[in-house]
Amino acid sequence: MRAAVMRQGRLLVDTLPDPTPGPGEVLVKTLACGICGSDLHALKFLPKMVESARESGVPFQLDVARDVVMGHEFCAEIIDFGSDTQRALEPGARVVSMPLTMGPAGLQGVGYSNDYPGGYGELMVLSELFLLPVPNGLSTEHAALTEPMAVGRHAVEKARLAPEDVALVLGCGPVGLAVIAALKLKGISPIFAADFSAARRRLAEAMGADVVADPAASSPYEKWSDAASFGPDAPPMPFMLGPALRPGVFFECVGVPGVIDKMMLGAPRAARIVVVGVCMERDQMRPMLGINKELSLQFVLGYEPHEFAATLFDISEGRIPVGPLITGKVGVEGVAGGFAELRNPERHAKILVEPWR
Amino acid sequence: MRAAVMRQGRLLVDTLPDPTPGPGEVLVKTLACGICGSDLHALKFLPKMVESARESGVPFQLDVARDVVMGHEFCAEIIDFGSDTQRALEPGARVVSMPLTMGPAGLQGVGYSNDYPGGYGELMVLSELFLLPVPNGLSTEHAALTEPMAVGRHAVEKARLAPEDVALVLGCGPVGLAVIAALKLKGISPIFAADFSAARRRLAEAMGADVVADPAASSPYEKWSDAASFGPDAPPMPFMLGPALRPGVFFECVGVPGVIDKMMLGAPRAARIVVVGVCMERDQMRPMLGINKELSLQFVLGYEPHEFAATLFDISEGRIPVGPLITGKVGVEGVAGGFAELRNPERHAKILVEPWR
Repeated sequence: MRAAVMRQGRLLVDTLPDPTPGPGEVLVKTLACGICGSDLHALKFLPKMVESARESGVPFQLDVARDVVMGHEFCAEIIDFGSDTQRALEPGARVVSMPLTMGPAGLQGVGYSNDYPGGYGELMVLSELFLLPVPNGLSTEHAALTEPMAVGRHAVEKARLAPEDVALVLGCGPVGLAVIAALKLKGISPIFAADFSAARRRLAEAMGADVVADPAASSPYEKWSDAASFGPDAPPMPFMLGPALRPGVFFECVGVPGVIDKMMLGAPRAARIVVVGVCMERDQMRPMLGINKELSLQFVLGYEPHEFAATLFDISEGRIPVGPLITGKVGVEGVAGGFAELRNPERHAKILVEPWR
Repeated sequence: MRAAVMRQGRLLVDTLPDPTPGPGEVLVKTLACGICGSDLHALKFLPKMVESARESGVPFQLDVARDVVMGHEFCAEIIDFGSDTQRALEPGARVVSMPLTMGPAGLQGVGYSNDYPGGYGELMVLSELFLLPVPNGLSTEHAALTEPMAVGRHAVEKARLAPEDVALVLGCGPVGLAVIAALKLKGISPIFAADFSAARRRLAEAMGADVVADPAASSPYEKWSDAASFGPDAPPMPFMLGPALRPGVFFECVGVPGVIDKMMLGAPRAARIVVVGVCMERDQMRPMLGINKELSLQFVLGYEPHEFAATLFDISEGRIPVGPLITGKVGVEGVAGGFAELRNPERHAKILVEPWR
């Protein structure tokens, strides 16, 4: 099959042997697969990612010296079945799946594996167990957005929001946009969002943000604070710890060093910071900011199976407006170019790879 | 009055003008006042502490160039009343108080103020509003332990523990010991504790720790993990993310750079780390450890008024065995020596200052 391959830290197009489904596995044709920021990270930081997973105790099997076909945000079509399969779905059925397989060697990440190529190639092998049929009428392109949108849903679930919380989303790339969509779906209001890019701020509004800020022009924390205030007639906080404010839940969706510390500096007393952005590097912070304000940091990753399934259902019911996120489509030859283009937030949010092109 | 004074980063004994109570304030004679690790920090890092409070938005009024009489863990005797006081308690009554006053300039910290001397001096001025009478029969020495014990109670409250949680306390100085006592009081079992000092480990057991570990000899995380395991017959976690474990709540009670990162490395998936130790310096961490394991960090500070009052009551009812913590007593001339001696964990946990000596 033709695929965009990560080989020795570079992206190139090559013809690879077709994968074959083992017991409990299904062969699928990739219809569409989103390019994820994590893949951009991986191209730059793969050895660090693997080391980090190992020191975290995550059973992540990957030899950085061998080929990897990335792509874990996919919609695909069933071609064939391996042995020991239930075959409840027919060949030709469109499916999405969490990018995981339960192979004989244990869990593997589709798109982050030497053995299970991801959606930047024409064919994939998936575990039948995880397949979800695309509900009737939902387009392939929108179904492919299930994975990144599920990341936002999970982050919002982990934040355990209460109705009085006022949310601020810092960074409106695909992760931040998914968080905004999940907050909107949950009825949280108002939703604040900040990004240096005007195009990203427009997308944030399209996903449900009530107020957007350009951090270069005004402090998102001050904007948040104005909205979270109970107003000039509210009683002062006990012991004059500052003005009375609704509780703050701040989503870190940037993922570069220094952002967590800046958020701890900007956050109000007792704020909960949910770290969704993936910072691969060592980072610095001032614990005293956390202590003085009694902040909490909740790190989050991925999603639960029920969150993934619910996200697909919500997209199919039109409750998550994923359409505006798709800003480009490429074939396997266009993957490397897509990676480069995604560095321009004014032009792009999500580029879909269509390996059959 | 005679007092141990912090002047230009040094501790010395001097005679200062007696403080006078203003409206709503009470003049008290210090009976006993514990030396706190924060005071050792402050002697070294005062300008940094003030700067850190300012950047955190804490209304902390302190001129580092002027004298400070520290001491915020006190039991005192009422001497006289200022104007506009209720006088429900009589002169001679023994009291404890949160170390806060509501002066005309706002909130001030008794013992961290240029205007309100703390318990390392013979006299203090307190807000009548915050006075709690020492219940009949409770010794002055034990009543003086209310403040540090309340810190542990608050940390445990903020951890929102469930019965299935298995707690690990890292660092068994006064903060860690207070956390252990609060865990025990809450019925949490088993309680794990770790400290390099054998004397501190014995104190941890006296306060209620079920298992103590010397990190130099064996990993406290492995000991924790053995106890938190549901055993060899337990079902594996979904997706083989490791063995099934009871949830982990890890209390950081050390407060030096690097400890948070080490705990993030040692902690199991989904652990909650409660940061009680006060690290005044910039610190480093690997966000990927937090992300891969979905850890949370909850920073905590101080206590609520009801937690302070409940702690006094529990000590007076014999439910917090504070006696073994008191390892020495000094007069004002002995404060500087006490600061030095507290650096030896084998000899000391809590030294009480008795300025009337």
